[in-house]
This record gives sequence, structure tokens and C-alpha cells, in this order.
Amino acid sequence: MPVNPNATIEITAFSWVPEFAQGVVRDLRARWALEEAGLDYRVRLLGQQRPAEYLKEQPFDQVPILRDGDLCIFETGAIVQYVGEKSEALLARDPGGRFRAIQWTYAALNSVEPAILNLLLIDIFYAGEEWAKLRRPGAADFARLKLKRLADWLGEKTWLDGDRFSIGDLIMITTLRFLRHTDMVAEFPNLGAYLKRGEERPAFQRALADQLAVYAANQPQPEGAAA
Amino acid sequence: MPVNPNATIEITAFSWVPEFAQGVVRDLRARWALEEAGLDYRVRLLGQQRPAEYLKEQPFDQVPILRDGDLCIFETGAIVQYVGEKSEALLARDPGGRFRAIQWTYAALNSVEPAILNLLLIDIFYAGEEWAKLRRPGAADFARLKLKRLADWLGEKTWLDGDRFSIGDLIMITTLRFLRHTDMVAEFPNLGAYLKRGEERPAFQRALADQLAVYAANQPQPEGAAA
Repeated sequence: MPVNPNATIEITAFSWVPEFAQGVVRDLRARWALEEAGLDYRVRLLGQQRPAEYLKEQPFDQVPILRDGDLCIFETGAIVQYVGEKSEALLARDPGGRFRAIQWTYAALNSVEPAILNLLLIDIFYAGEEWAKLRRPGAADFARLKLKRLADWLGEKTWLDGDRFSIGDLIMITTLRFLRHTDMVAEFPNLGAYLKRGEERPAFQRALADQLAVYAANQPQPEGAAA
Repeated sequence: MPVNPNATIEITAFSWVPEFAQGVVRDLRARWALEEAGLDYRVRLLGQQRPAEYLKEQPFDQVPILRDGDLCIFETGAIVQYVGEKSEALLARDPGGRFRAIQWTYAALNSVEPAILNLLLIDIFYAGEEWAKLRRPGAADFARLKLKRLADWLGEKTWLDGDRFSIGDLIMITTLRFLRHTDMVAEFPNLGAYLKRGEERPAFQRALADQLAVYAANQPQPEGAAA
């Protein structure tokens, strides 16, 4: 069981987040990678208000970071690559396979995620604002173009580089999940099936269950509830 | 002289782009990394309308890609990491230094660039649109917050990880350049000085000159000009 309070590897996560964010907060990526690699980890929980000192570990005040002995790294792309270098299940050892996996990790985070998160922000955070209403059609078209490019590349392949799952798929699949409030991924049947294949992996299921269990255990009490 | 038509390594670049994009197109990152590493490369030029087959090399239709023998990779993060693995000048060999450089490469591309490019798009591509006028103050605040976080981390350090330049600085500095149409980076004096330090590196200067020389040589003729 990878979540283990005595593990050497530590990640940070939130003790609770609102429902729209549950199941997509980025510690899910670190948890999933560690599950695929079979590496134990412990979790340091943070409140939504992080202590000011957290900025010395994570300059952008985000979760997760990963600590492993003296090493402390942030950014989920770097974290999954670090875990991948410990486990061939996530990152091939031959230079070609290795760099194709790394390129897809970057592609998910730089060529796909910004377009998708832009739409998520419009739909969830800025839904009531005039600019968001005016901008939504264009933002949706741009996100859809990225999905089309991705679907065209994927074709009939199982994973982005063929038969072999990698950190690139792990980051791409967690990126596509940011659109779960829409039907956009399913507009591309091969992409919808790819997302489903990723989410059905036992390591993903365990990572998701562990993230959600923390939120369930730390559910805020309604005001006025008995102490 | 790294640009060499007989080199093994090939990158793609545009033969010409409009002035607002000159000096920030992303092949600059690949050129700069190759210059720092002292590796020769040749350039395959593409028109603004890429051939449909280019999508088989670059699924998102962007430049650059890098070819080195059988290897073909896209995404500037992956490309500079590939070049970094060939040259300690760009990527430390010890695991700590190596992963801190990689984390900053991801941070530039995922935690900083989306906020900055969002503002660039508002200012350059969508300047006349109503939503862009309404959205600009919030988008500028968000970009400024990212710059503040970065400036706070940087403090008095020369580079993001201290005295040692890395691929993380290379990507961060080319990301900050996307704000050159504003004075926002200079609002943070240590960040302005950091940007200047990066741009003053001889390898950067050569990379920039080589990118601009291509555009100068392929300047479109005004309509009606003599053939």
C-alpha cells in the first residue's frame, strides 16, 4: 500500500478542497505515478491557506511538492519524471522512448493544459463575468482544436507512444480530466476511450481513492454544527 | 559556428514571421540551447502554412522540432532537456541540480508562461475585442502575481538555482521575453536584471541574430514590387 506514514518519499496535498476540485488537484498526478512505480509515500497535508514558509518549498504556492531525502522538487512534470526515472513502468530506458515520453509530458502541460484550464476557469471561476460570456465560444474552439490535434495523433493507438504507457499519458489523462464538466473529450471517441483506459488503471483508481479519502475525512463542519 | 548545413542535428523554424513575433518564436530556445552546448545544427525552414505532413512530426503544428539521427522530438522543454543531457553547461549531472533545473523548465512552461501568453494574446491578437478590454486588468494582475512569486524566489541569486545557469533559466528568460511589449518585468528590478543577464549571454546573442537573419533574408516583397 503506497500511502505509508513511515515512507521516505513525502508529497504535499490539501486536506480539503471544494467539490469541483476534488479528483483533479495535482497531487493526484504524483500519487498515480508513485502507485504505478510501486513506491511508498507519505502525505503532508496543508490547509487552503498555506503557511508563508511554504513558498520556500514551492515558489508558486501550489501542491504538490515531492521530498525524497535531501531532494525537494515541485511541478508535477518534474515530479513524474523523477518517479519515472526510478521505474521503467513509467519511463522507457532507451533514449527514443524516453524522450518521446518526456515530450508528451511537456506537450500535455504546455500545449494542451493552458487551453483546457482557460475554459475551466471561464466555466467555474468567472462564469458570472461579462468577459467570460463573450470569450467562452473562442476559448472552447481553441480547446477543441487542441483535442482534435491530440485525437488525430492518437488514432487507433492505445497510448500516445503506442503500446507503452508512460508519464506522458499520465499527465495527459489528468489534464483531460479538467474538462470533466463538459462533454468535449467524448466528442472525439478515440480520445474518450483513451481517457477511460487511463482512469481504469488500478494505480489510478488507488491514487484517486486516496486523494478523495483525505477530503472525506476533513470535510468542513457546517456552521452551527455540534462540536 | 553552430548553424551548419551539414550538421546532424536539425531543427525547424519559420522562414518569416510578422515583426511582433520576431525574436520570440520558440526555435530561439532550441538555437540558444545548442549554442550554449556548442553543438552544430542545421535549420529546416517552413512557411507560415505548414504542409499537412508536418503534423506527423509535430501534432500541434508548432515550431521547432529537433531531429538527431533517428530521434525526432517536439516541445521546447523536451528539446532543451535533450540538449542539456549532452552538455553539463546546461544541465547538472548530480540528481539534485539536475532535477532543480528540470523543475524550473516545467515551472516556466506551466506555472509562468500561460499567464504571460494570456496577456500577450489579449494585447496583440484580441486587442480590439470587448472581452479583451474587460479581461485585461485581471489577466495583468495574474501575470504580475507570477512575476512577483518568481522575483521573490530569485532574490539576489544570479540564476534560479544560484550560480549555475541551466535549461530552467533558458526557458524562463525566453518566457519573460513574451512581455517585452510591456514594462512589467522591469517592475521587479531583480527580475529585470535577471532577464538582461540572460539576454547578454553570447550564446543567446548568436541564437537571436541567427533567427532574425532568416527573417531578414525572407522578407515578403511588398505587393507590386518589381520581381
